[in-house]
Amino acid sequence: MEILHKTIGAIKPLDRHFFTTAQKRLDILTKPKGSLGSLEEIAARMVAITQHERPSVKVKAIITMAGDHGVAAEGVSAFPQEVTRQMVYNFVGGGAAINVLARHVGAQVSVVDMGVIGDFESNLPVIRLKVAHGTANLAKGPAMTREQAVHALENGIQLVHDLKKKGLDIVGTGDMGIANTTPSSAIAAAFLGCPAREVTGRGTGIDDEGLRRKSAVIDAGIALNKPDPKDPVDVLAKVGGFEIGGIAGVILGAASMRIPVVIDGLISTAGAFIAYHLCPAVAEYMFAAHASVEVGQGKMLAQMGLHPILNLNMRLGEGTGAALAIGIIESAVKILNEMATFESAGVSDKQ
Amino acid sequence: MEILHKTIGAIKPLDRHFFTTAQKRLDILTKPKGSLGSLEEIAARMVAITQHERPSVKVKAIITMAGDHGVAAEGVSAFPQEVTRQMVYNFVGGGAAINVLARHVGAQVSVVDMGVIGDFESNLPVIRLKVAHGTANLAKGPAMTREQAVHALENGIQLVHDLKKKGLDIVGTGDMGIANTTPSSAIAAAFLGCPAREVTGRGTGIDDEGLRRKSAVIDAGIALNKPDPKDPVDVLAKVGGFEIGGIAGVILGAASMRIPVVIDGLISTAGAFIAYHLCPAVAEYMFAAHASVEVGQGKMLAQMGLHPILNLNMRLGEGTGAALAIGIIESAVKILNEMATFESAGVSDKQ
Repeated sequence: MEILHKTIGAIKPLDRHFFTTAQKRLDILTKPKGSLGSLEEIAARMVAITQHERPSVKVKAIITMAGDHGVAAEGVSAFPQEVTRQMVYNFVGGGAAINVLARHVGAQVSVVDMGVIGDFESNLPVIRLKVAHGTANLAKGPAMTREQAVHALENGIQLVHDLKKKGLDIVGTGDMGIANTTPSSAIAAAFLGCPAREVTGRGTGIDDEGLRRKSAVIDAGIALNKPDPKDPVDVLAKVGGFEIGGIAGVILGAASMRIPVVIDGLISTAGAFIAYHLCPAVAEYMFAAHASVEVGQGKMLAQMGLHPILNLNMRLGEGTGAALAIGIIESAVKILNEMATFESAGVSDKQ
Repeated sequence: MEILHKTIGAIKPLDRHFFTTAQKRLDILTKPKGSLGSLEEIAARMVAITQHERPSVKVKAIITMAGDHGVAAEGVSAFPQEVTRQMVYNFVGGGAAINVLARHVGAQVSVVDMGVIGDFESNLPVIRLKVAHGTANLAKGPAMTREQAVHALENGIQLVHDLKKKGLDIVGTGDMGIANTTPSSAIAAAFLGCPAREVTGRGTGIDDEGLRRKSAVIDAGIALNKPDPKDPVDVLAKVGGFEIGGIAGVILGAASMRIPVVIDGLISTAGAFIAYHLCPAVAEYMFAAHASVEVGQGKMLAQMGLHPILNLNMRLGEGTGAALAIGIIESAVKILNEMATFESAGVSDKQ
């Protein structure tokens, strides 16, 4: 609990002065003022987060956190539970979508076992932060204990500290966990105080009947466990997941060290929502990578005041949206760092 | 005129068979079916355009075409006319936004003089396809002769043939020309048959009074010149621009050789609109890079059935949106080419 409290205490609101400095620079570059739209806003926020007038986006990481979910027993996913474990091997082997997209933007993928059922061979390059072998079924009781929730959060914080030691300019979050859109939508419903159907989608591709069952499971889980929206650790413990807690920890840890953090789709946004309710100031350190097809994500982003950079109708997770968004953020920073000014290029400014 | 006719004759509708083949492949990759959304659609269309099951996106080019506009005399731009010429030097020097963003995605920038006022030093690395030293003022008469319009189109076609000789996997279009949102909005209004104000925006940043003046200039230019929407060469000649004709030519030339072409913002979309009205089949060879802030662009895209890949509130031109979109398209093709299948990765498919 001490690591968590210390980390939250270290997260400060962004200093508006850095936005002004950055925009002043952007306004003397050879383009009409404001004509690069979101790229200019991203660049200015990167300056404010890092407190560097010319931020670096060289060392890029995607943290893909895996965990299993007891609620899979309720038939809420289109895929069998063993896929979580199988996909960890796929991540390590470099054949998953996140591997392809992370390579595309020059980011390293850190594969983390936050709570997969079963153990991995000791030589497998997986970061071992397992809290337990899967959560309990949130439809039957709390998904985890309060101690496990804090453990998951602090594991995430610790991990980003470890990555920072080797240099880290920007980090994206990702997830893998069969059934994990169920706890993610449950987290959204718990904080937003709305019925599950308003924040629940088809995940990996369930049909109408499956969607009704999934919403009913979430409503029942919330009614049974009574997660307290005033106590984010309680929400995580009652209806969350180990990888979701880990992601929340990564976000808090990154913000505490002024490292920009790019959140992916629904599951990462649920992690971000936990982090945000623990410490609202964390929101300005986050970039929302993309608008997920999953309906719950947009409602959480709206409450945090975040606007997705991309809208590509994606719903895969793993950090795939975060990887693509990191490419856009890097381009925005290059605009700031590499463009000529009106004066240096001998171009006449606006009349 | 012969080159133009031959090129149009060579553009064939896409063969649906390639979409099916591509989707079959996408569906056995280790992800829920359809979960990569637009990336899957982009990848499938890349297969259909190139007729290669594993397309290549290695050799990438942005063609940034510059031209001056007589209508600048009407005070429709916030910047002085000499900026067109000054920006050509900036492009060659590598300090403009398009240079930064093209480098970011590994694309070469070809800087083309389609009709800038004045001549460039003979050693300046600019591709010289100048039709004339700026267009005439469309508020006072036709912007160019019909022969000049065909000349501009065929210069664009020739250029993409030249680039193709050195290898070309994908090409993005871009523009530079003070006042060129005016002819672009005029092209939109001429084809769509609507008043200028419905398709006219602030360009580089004119105020309300400037916007009213600009709309009035476009309406007057259309009333005076009577461009015939059934005759796209007439529209280009009466209210277009040399770089806009060049862009239309690039698009037609690329499509005729099955090279995917990524169109940028308002000006490129006006060029695309000319190409589309000459040959509707060209639309499927185009990717709309981004939704521009300029209101006329969306209306033209809608008529062509194109959906922008990005929405970053940009309005700069030069090919800046096209460059970023090429990065996304490349990532989509890598998904197709590099991801593991359920079978190869030993991952269980949907239950």
